[in-house]
Amino acid sequence: MTQVIKAREGILTKELKTIARNESIEESKLQSLIARGRVVIPANVNHRNLLPIGIGEGLRTKVNANIGTSPDFDSLQEELQKLRTVEKCRADTVMDLSTGGDISRIRREMIKATSLPFGNVPVYQMVVQKSFESQKFVEMEPAEMMEYIAMQAEDGVDFMTIHAGLTRRGLRWLEERRRVAGIVSRGGSLMAGWMFHQDRENPFYTHFDQLLEICRRYDVTLSLGDGLRPGSLMDATDHGQLEELMVLGELVDRCHHAGVQVMVEGPGHLPLSQVEINIKLQKTLCKGAPFYVLGPIVTDIAPGYDHITGAIGGALAAAAGADFLCYVTPAEHLGLPDEESVKEGIMASRIAAHAGDISKNIPGALDRDQAMSQARRDLDWDKQKKICLDPIRFEQIRKKRSTRSEACSMCGDFCVYKILEGKDI
Amino acid sequence: MTQVIKAREGILTKELKTIARNESIEESKLQSLIARGRVVIPANVNHRNLLPIGIGEGLRTKVNANIGTSPDFDSLQEELQKLRTVEKCRADTVMDLSTGGDISRIRREMIKATSLPFGNVPVYQMVVQKSFESQKFVEMEPAEMMEYIAMQAEDGVDFMTIHAGLTRRGLRWLEERRRVAGIVSRGGSLMAGWMFHQDRENPFYTHFDQLLEICRRYDVTLSLGDGLRPGSLMDATDHGQLEELMVLGELVDRCHHAGVQVMVEGPGHLPLSQVEINIKLQKTLCKGAPFYVLGPIVTDIAPGYDHITGAIGGALAAAAGADFLCYVTPAEHLGLPDEESVKEGIMASRIAAHAGDISKNIPGALDRDQAMSQARRDLDWDKQKKICLDPIRFEQIRKKRSTRSEACSMCGDFCVYKILEGKDI
Repeated sequence: MTQVIKAREGILTKELKTIARNESIEESKLQSLIARGRVVIPANVNHRNLLPIGIGEGLRTKVNANIGTSPDFDSLQEELQKLRTVEKCRADTVMDLSTGGDISRIRREMIKATSLPFGNVPVYQMVVQKSFESQKFVEMEPAEMMEYIAMQAEDGVDFMTIHAGLTRRGLRWLEERRRVAGIVSRGGSLMAGWMFHQDRENPFYTHFDQLLEICRRYDVTLSLGDGLRPGSLMDATDHGQLEELMVLGELVDRCHHAGVQVMVEGPGHLPLSQVEINIKLQKTLCKGAPFYVLGPIVTDIAPGYDHITGAIGGALAAAAGADFLCYVTPAEHLGLPDEESVKEGIMASRIAAHAGDISKNIPGALDRDQAMSQARRDLDWDKQKKICLDPIRFEQIRKKRSTRSEACSMCGDFCVYKILEGKDI
Repeated sequence: MTQVIKAREGILTKELKTIARNESIEESKLQSLIARGRVVIPANVNHRNLLPIGIGEGLRTKVNANIGTSPDFDSLQEELQKLRTVEKCRADTVMDLSTGGDISRIRREMIKATSLPFGNVPVYQMVVQKSFESQKFVEMEPAEMMEYIAMQAEDGVDFMTIHAGLTRRGLRWLEERRRVAGIVSRGGSLMAGWMFHQDRENPFYTHFDQLLEICRRYDVTLSLGDGLRPGSLMDATDHGQLEELMVLGELVDRCHHAGVQVMVEGPGHLPLSQVEINIKLQKTLCKGAPFYVLGPIVTDIAPGYDHITGAIGGALAAAAGADFLCYVTPAEHLGLPDEESVKEGIMASRIAAHAGDISKNIPGALDRDQAMSQARRDLDWDKQKKICLDPIRFEQIRKKRSTRSEACSMCGDFCVYKILEGKDI
């Protein structure tokens, strides 16, 4: 039985209880949110060492970090090192997007090594494996695809991105109206390639019931991918994107009906002015299912700084109701992120999530900010260091610019709290 | 005659013409905006090598970088080096906030060296000078303060932050209601200290007409400082802040009446949900005068990353109508920024300004994003490098993770544009 079925039957699972405690939310309230599909608990029955988290309405906004090999960099050891960084920097979940090396082995080692909810994009392994075997992904039959997915579910994957909403209708629109950036979702482009080659409908759409069966068996949470997400500000909130979102809304219904946990993925590249409406649309069309946004980044011209463009869009998205932010690293659009990029990406996304949580009134979200402000006023640097997001960086910057004053080297004794010392204002 | 007086008299100055050309705005439209105080051109008649810019409604959002010595780090050479960084990173203006060393000399060297509009906070020199002379700023008479300001104006300062809106009424509220973070504006705390000590009204408020005379003589643009800006999310949009903003609104009227260019400074620390309302309030109370925001930063807990917390708030502020963003560096709340911090701060603010410009439909704001998206689709890396915000960082990241593919090392030949090559979608 999946978490959603248990919640509907009034069973309070140990995962639910843990989350209720961690998020200071009443168990009965959380149960209702899970039962109605507004919160998911990605927790594959085979992921033994999992520390469960909840994603969705009323809960703290969560942050995902993508790691994984590429054809050019396929070291398992480097990815395991990144996984440790992901945990140290306190991302809430991790996804393995490997497209190089032995994908099954990488996945199994990572799941064994991590207590974080673990996600993947099943089709990546299919295309890599077929290319190793000098065969073609576009010639695979849906039945074999389902075997791959079942194997990955058996391994303990907690949530899977499946691009089931990109249909022939969406592709036809694309052919008629050509976008600036076309398709930028890797999973989406693979499905499109298959559909073009086969001249058939998206196999994840036609075989969705089989998918649901696999997910229900292992309690895999489906993360419905947005194959037509905009990859340029010029393509944002266009017909193709919305067409797919409406299909995803229908698939959410089928998941809920089947007792399978589901969330929905979203853009991508969006002008700041379109962020809020995108969240409201998804929440409406997808019946309040948790929304997992990829950024969104708010300009296309800042490669090298896309952790910042993503933090701007992510904060606004979280404030408007997005539940789950996929990080963006400074290496986005340029190359596979290294460990340092992974760290920068996580910290920027955590800031965005926290700013969003304050804005949408998540209980207790302001507590740390209040304590930090008080420690600042008291010029209590040890306390500030303890409270802040990144004590190591805090220390580094302070040490680089030491001062003779008890204040900091920006103002020295001209610090406002020295100037007005003793004034109770 | 100041730019605003000339605009009212129908004179199209060479500064106005330059700006109209640079911003692709009709001269007559720009003239009207300047005449109505909605756009300012900070251009002191004595700043000879100035390349003028406009700040305000309908124009590109501008970015200011603060540099300057502190009691602990008072090297003129280091600050001149930072000034070169500010120009190289393409901030739109620079402010000298020096509080260490020979302030007059630093100011004069900087004005001579830069073609950027140059701002300062006149009271800083007063307090530093008095402390060198073992005297007390709090014992200065208003007449002597005016002499300092006249000298700085004579030197060619283009815009000056004056904390004239912090009145005894505002201070009384503070004493009655105690904030979490109190006063965090250095200028504000100095004026408050003087007012407490003297038991008199703010001298910049009582002597505002004298100030206006000096500004009119040199065409110094007044930047009305917000001494009571919130320094903690807990203090955001409170009575004290709004009380001062209403006073600033009255002072804006007096500036307009006197033919003195004026803009208004704003927060500070704000929850994301309060950013837009703060911009709308300022624009209403201050009759559309350009709004110069200091961040705003959207959480207190991320020292070391405040260029990011500031970029989130700044982007949202610019989108809502803020005209001018003061950068925030990663060193904020920790120490005096070094050259690297200055660079990081400027780039983050420029991203925020640009994201805001796209959102508020500044003509042409999307052109570069469109060109970038097309270059991405074409896998034209040279073109992407040419278009992007920071070609040096672009190259560094790409080189660090080289690839055998014509795509990038994230996906190699699994790049979406390789997968769907030749498909016209």
